[in-house]
Amino acid sequence: MNSNDLFKKEVHSLKRYVPGKPIEEVKKELGLDEITKLASNENPLGPSKKAVAAIRNEAENIHIYPDSLAAALREDLAKKYDLSPDEILVSNGGEEIIKLIAQTFINPGDEAIMATPTFGLYTTNVLHMGGTPIQIPLKNYKHDFEAFIEKINDRTKLIFVCNPNNPVGNIMTQDEIHHLLKNIPEDVVIVFDEAYYEYAIKNPQYPNSLKILKERPNTIIIRTFSKVAGLAGLRTGYTLTSSKIINEMSKVKNVFNVNRLAQVAARASLQDEEHIHNTVSLNYESLGLMEKYFEENHLEYIKSNANFVFVNINMDSKVAFQELMAKGVIIRPGYLWNMDSWIRISTGTLEQTENFLCKLDEVLKLE
Amino acid sequence: MNSNDLFKKEVHSLKRYVPGKPIEEVKKELGLDEITKLASNENPLGPSKKAVAAIRNEAENIHIYPDSLAAALREDLAKKYDLSPDEILVSNGGEEIIKLIAQTFINPGDEAIMATPTFGLYTTNVLHMGGTPIQIPLKNYKHDFEAFIEKINDRTKLIFVCNPNNPVGNIMTQDEIHHLLKNIPEDVVIVFDEAYYEYAIKNPQYPNSLKILKERPNTIIIRTFSKVAGLAGLRTGYTLTSSKIINEMSKVKNVFNVNRLAQVAARASLQDEEHIHNTVSLNYESLGLMEKYFEENHLEYIKSNANFVFVNINMDSKVAFQELMAKGVIIRPGYLWNMDSWIRISTGTLEQTENFLCKLDEVLKLE
Repeated sequence: MNSNDLFKKEVHSLKRYVPGKPIEEVKKELGLDEITKLASNENPLGPSKKAVAAIRNEAENIHIYPDSLAAALREDLAKKYDLSPDEILVSNGGEEIIKLIAQTFINPGDEAIMATPTFGLYTTNVLHMGGTPIQIPLKNYKHDFEAFIEKINDRTKLIFVCNPNNPVGNIMTQDEIHHLLKNIPEDVVIVFDEAYYEYAIKNPQYPNSLKILKERPNTIIIRTFSKVAGLAGLRTGYTLTSSKIINEMSKVKNVFNVNRLAQVAARASLQDEEHIHNTVSLNYESLGLMEKYFEENHLEYIKSNANFVFVNINMDSKVAFQELMAKGVIIRPGYLWNMDSWIRISTGTLEQTENFLCKLDEVLKLE
Repeated sequence: MNSNDLFKKEVHSLKRYVPGKPIEEVKKELGLDEITKLASNENPLGPSKKAVAAIRNEAENIHIYPDSLAAALREDLAKKYDLSPDEILVSNGGEEIIKLIAQTFINPGDEAIMATPTFGLYTTNVLHMGGTPIQIPLKNYKHDFEAFIEKINDRTKLIFVCNPNNPVGNIMTQDEIHHLLKNIPEDVVIVFDEAYYEYAIKNPQYPNSLKILKERPNTIIIRTFSKVAGLAGLRTGYTLTSSKIINEMSKVKNVFNVNRLAQVAARASLQDEEHIHNTVSLNYESLGLMEKYFEENHLEYIKSNANFVFVNINMDSKVAFQELMAKGVIIRPGYLWNMDSWIRISTGTLEQTENFLCKLDEVLKLE
């Protein structure tokens, strides 16, 4: 056996994820006291106080395995969305759902259609299962659904729609989604990745994917407690789909995939509507500050319905990333998505956002 | 497309995991105030107080993504085991490592040799990737390594050795393991599942798998914080293997697979040697009580080096399970592993263990 034969054949083509440096390390390297991290779309208000209290209260019970079905949390979500608990699966972050989708549907040779750029884990997981990602470049910075429709054939198993699209931040509207749905076969599974759902619904044109699910069972909705609920560190995502699909995905998931503290914290977060309201309000205020600066400085940006914004700063994003980091601000450079003059910035507190704009201004004026 | 074609073909053959009922539900159904759960090999002393403090301290930071590399925890483990951090991968419970092994190594048609009965997730995950589990019945309640050796062929990719073996509790000795290793090709990956390692090392014949790893890179060791450290609810396992294998497994894992609180709690647990010492001492005291009863009552049992014991009670285990539950004690019935007259009991506090023996005595005397 040669050394390559040791591993599953698709694993060779995968790339190892290279994460950003932890904040503490950056502080040490640069000799900075304070870092403003606007790179990972985290909630600048932190988690709900109710979630923190629930964690502290449950901490003594962590020697007991979690409920592998997350029954209580699924019950809460079922009530919230008027679904049956059998139509809900909770996961170790939204990313586990993406993995489970590939692992539940993809046979070697199957195709999955998606935009590019979009969230990177769709391709990785489809490739891992021996499938072929069909990547359709954005058109006017939006999903090009006409091209999606043209690419559909007998091998098409999945369509991914990241809505709002990460890293761009814009939404595909109700009308656009309905046009797509009218032109794809019923047995193609459509995945709506709605990680930023609670921000996006402020846009009246945002589609009602739950209504689509009720009419079209081969529909999968992904949502998460990582963003608006501020539980990224605990890993809790979920999917809403038909009970038939949940049943198959459940066979593939880790048995005890969602930890005990995540389950109690997510339940507590659902009770704290004020925290969600404040988070979404702050988000749009913070976006407003950035949009104002971009407009005053004639920078092209994409109107966002997420908790980040994508802007063309007309300079090498790798350089901008380094210069901003030296000034204590971490953003995501666009070269990661082959958009070399763009950067993605998460919304911060107003103070953090103003600090970013001030530092960006210095970087741009030096150019 | 017929309805079966919708899903990945191997998923049909998988069975959905049916978990035990949560304790609260059992209490309600049976009208009991107190339940002694000796079914899931949890730590009866609970987690380390240092781990609980670490969780409470970190709870406010859960809006921040965890370190996807778990660098600090891997550093601690590297020191403990005199390895490089590149030889360590941390996971969402030990079960994620089992999943990653199948997903990193198994091409359709590959074979994986294992005992039966043994931990159930080996077969599920091998089947999911299109591999064939080769299940070798125990001989005198131990792994039958002669039969393992006979089954090796060109398709053999993995050998699983659950040591101590779950649900039986006994170990394969240093001599037995070395005999196996001498008779298998170097390019076959051997997996030592050592979830109960800290209990097992009290047996001087327990093999030194780390030493084996140093001489034989295609060796994978699985350990966990779920058992002796009492962190089952938080999900933290890890693997020790060659950096080459870690590199490939890292491409397949969820990016942010280990939550933030698990990382700090595991680090704190490593500092609390007294908690581990007390846990292991209690375990053997509790095993001693059970062995004494089994011997006095002429029940066949397997000498255990884990935190559970397997005993033949000469009655239908399904009936025993129901009758014990009605008396407020939950154990694992052997019919789950086709050993219908056996039961598996986790060690409890001395009080819990005595309570179990008292209730078992009532059940057996009624027969």
